[in-house]
Amino acid sequence: MPTISKRGEQVPPSPIRKLVPFAEAAKKRGTKVYHLNIGQPDIETPKPMLDAVRQSNFKILEYSHSAGNESYRRKLVEYYARFDISLTHEQIIVTTGGSEAIIFAFMACLDPGDEIIVPEPFYANYNGFATEAEVKVKTITSSIESGFALPAMADFEKAITSKTKAILICNPNNPTGYLYSKEELEVLKQLCLKHDLFLFSDEAYREFCYTGKHFSAMNLDGLENNVIIMDTISKRYSACGARIGAFVTKNQEALTAAMKLAQARLSPPSFAQIAAEAAVDLPLDYFDGIKAEYQSRRDILVAMLNEIPGVFCPNPGGAFYAMAKLPIDDSDKFCQWILESFEFEGQTVMMAPGTGFYATPGLGKDEVRLAYVLNQADIRHAIVCLAEALKVYPGKTSK
Amino acid sequence: MPTISKRGEQVPPSPIRKLVPFAEAAKKRGTKVYHLNIGQPDIETPKPMLDAVRQSNFKILEYSHSAGNESYRRKLVEYYARFDISLTHEQIIVTTGGSEAIIFAFMACLDPGDEIIVPEPFYANYNGFATEAEVKVKTITSSIESGFALPAMADFEKAITSKTKAILICNPNNPTGYLYSKEELEVLKQLCLKHDLFLFSDEAYREFCYTGKHFSAMNLDGLENNVIIMDTISKRYSACGARIGAFVTKNQEALTAAMKLAQARLSPPSFAQIAAEAAVDLPLDYFDGIKAEYQSRRDILVAMLNEIPGVFCPNPGGAFYAMAKLPIDDSDKFCQWILESFEFEGQTVMMAPGTGFYATPGLGKDEVRLAYVLNQADIRHAIVCLAEALKVYPGKTSK
Repeated sequence: MPTISKRGEQVPPSPIRKLVPFAEAAKKRGTKVYHLNIGQPDIETPKPMLDAVRQSNFKILEYSHSAGNESYRRKLVEYYARFDISLTHEQIIVTTGGSEAIIFAFMACLDPGDEIIVPEPFYANYNGFATEAEVKVKTITSSIESGFALPAMADFEKAITSKTKAILICNPNNPTGYLYSKEELEVLKQLCLKHDLFLFSDEAYREFCYTGKHFSAMNLDGLENNVIIMDTISKRYSACGARIGAFVTKNQEALTAAMKLAQARLSPPSFAQIAAEAAVDLPLDYFDGIKAEYQSRRDILVAMLNEIPGVFCPNPGGAFYAMAKLPIDDSDKFCQWILESFEFEGQTVMMAPGTGFYATPGLGKDEVRLAYVLNQADIRHAIVCLAEALKVYPGKTSK
Repeated sequence: MPTISKRGEQVPPSPIRKLVPFAEAAKKRGTKVYHLNIGQPDIETPKPMLDAVRQSNFKILEYSHSAGNESYRRKLVEYYARFDISLTHEQIIVTTGGSEAIIFAFMACLDPGDEIIVPEPFYANYNGFATEAEVKVKTITSSIESGFALPAMADFEKAITSKTKAILICNPNNPTGYLYSKEELEVLKQLCLKHDLFLFSDEAYREFCYTGKHFSAMNLDGLENNVIIMDTISKRYSACGARIGAFVTKNQEALTAAMKLAQARLSPPSFAQIAAEAAVDLPLDYFDGIKAEYQSRRDILVAMLNEIPGVFCPNPGGAFYAMAKLPIDDSDKFCQWILESFEFEGQTVMMAPGTGFYATPGLGKDEVRLAYVLNQADIRHAIVCLAEALKVYPGKTSK
């Protein structure tokens, strides 16, 4: 029997999805499970997006342009202009989800053995893409006590070697919800210019900022040739299943390389591009209501968490995630236990163990990520469950 | 300015798409261009597939399961059973097009520096995926004189080294249209068992066999742990823009590795999975009419080509491509010239230069690939154009 690749063995399993069997078993027992574990919003996809697809009348589901339909890319130019990001449609490659934008950036800019610096905790799937690209992720740790602010410039300097090719941030951040300030981005700019690094900026949650305003890496003057934006409509329009994202850069060489990767895989999905194009024409106040809803959920979640003895949850400035520190021995054990061995009034809650978002062994053992993608009533129920669980969890620490 | 990766530089540009600017210029001049260059069929996508999407009534466009909707995978089990391929739904991972099935196979089974053997001419995009995976493609040449039959076993033996991990075939073949026989597959089986190799079988054109019957690599007894099928609905149902394919294997380790890759990129497109699932319920005689149409096109194309002085086109047994040998100096020059400097009655034809399908330098210079994806009248017009062009092409050889 032929053996698979080392790479195939080394790709890490998804830390978020590994608890799924325990959640399924709980549901089979009749327990209601609140899913705070995954960024799948309960917000409806805007009807004009779905209607655009349902009312389409083409007869052949053809390949699109490898960079995505030109009409959609021209619409995206309008979209980015709303954030004072000035682009041409040729600086945008429509990708199959934000995931493919990440892969394109890794493949186009990094060779096997190259290093990329990521503040931890970080979006766990970056690990999978790094393994595919044979790239080494080096982390510098941000702390829950500081609300997960950007680590000090000196920490970056210490991590940079001759093999470092890029810094990757997610802004606002998944999993922490932290919104990087303009000043923090200026620090990254100095680092990138000094060491000639790419700045990969995952801006999937651009619209969802509650405390402060989003500042895009693309707006860093003088860093135009270093910045690659990895974007997606998944969270923005509650359209995760569309699989439409974007690779955006003004670096012509990176664009040319990514375009060849795009041609090799032929084209992004055609149906979903229709929905994505319609999204750009949504009323400009569309996000007001959505943002207000997420902000209310955040406020409830964070307030309730901080009322639980021994729990600390910094107030996230954006996205729809929060990391909370719990009085527990091991977040992997706890997140499994609460699904497997606990219920309160027939209910329990699924969370993502903090360990999955750290590369440094031992970190995140007393943290969990909570996605506030459920309605306010459900969030209240879920946090009540969590509070009750913490009263009886056998691995509770005395803090 | 940061430099891109060597990999990013080395990804080959698509040989099929590089002539696009010349075709666009011809159209701007008012010349009608017959597109025989790309496998985008003019056949309508089955209405039940499009209707299934248009009549869908969900409110949130959610992520699907990373392996694809279970309902669709269960349908695919039915589909494969029609070819006596016995599978469980857990042996199928729904991919974003056949392209992603190829990437998953490369990433899951091959490490950087590993070698994969492919008979040439071959589907050019394998090169792009190999570059991403840092894998070396080694080719053995099949000849137009033999109709592109599988090269001799001895040729494979000569190419196999300690680094060889897999053999890749496309059956029926793109670009040659060659349909591998059961006997040829048995030869590959012996090679794979002897040298412990994976057999990657791209069966995108399974239904389109005109001379003989398709024999799937999955039906090779005793090779179950070595075979990975790379599949797609793109050509089968004229649904190229759906971006739905499948990675199919009974090798549990390869499946586990591919599943981790699938989880990292979250899910295949949701809209298109609805269309794909509806496709499995099309009447079983759906392919009869389509196949008859492609066969008529093939018959016209091949007969007309072989009537042109100096042209030789073997009769392809399947798919919808033919490779033809032309009395020309250089297929790249010729395919550009016919778009740039020629027209006959206001028309010209776009073809794919043969060179793009060979890895061995110099091969394919007198060959072109023609995709018979246009209606019969258009194919006639296109081949008349080609015949007229060959009368006046400055680089005509005396053969």
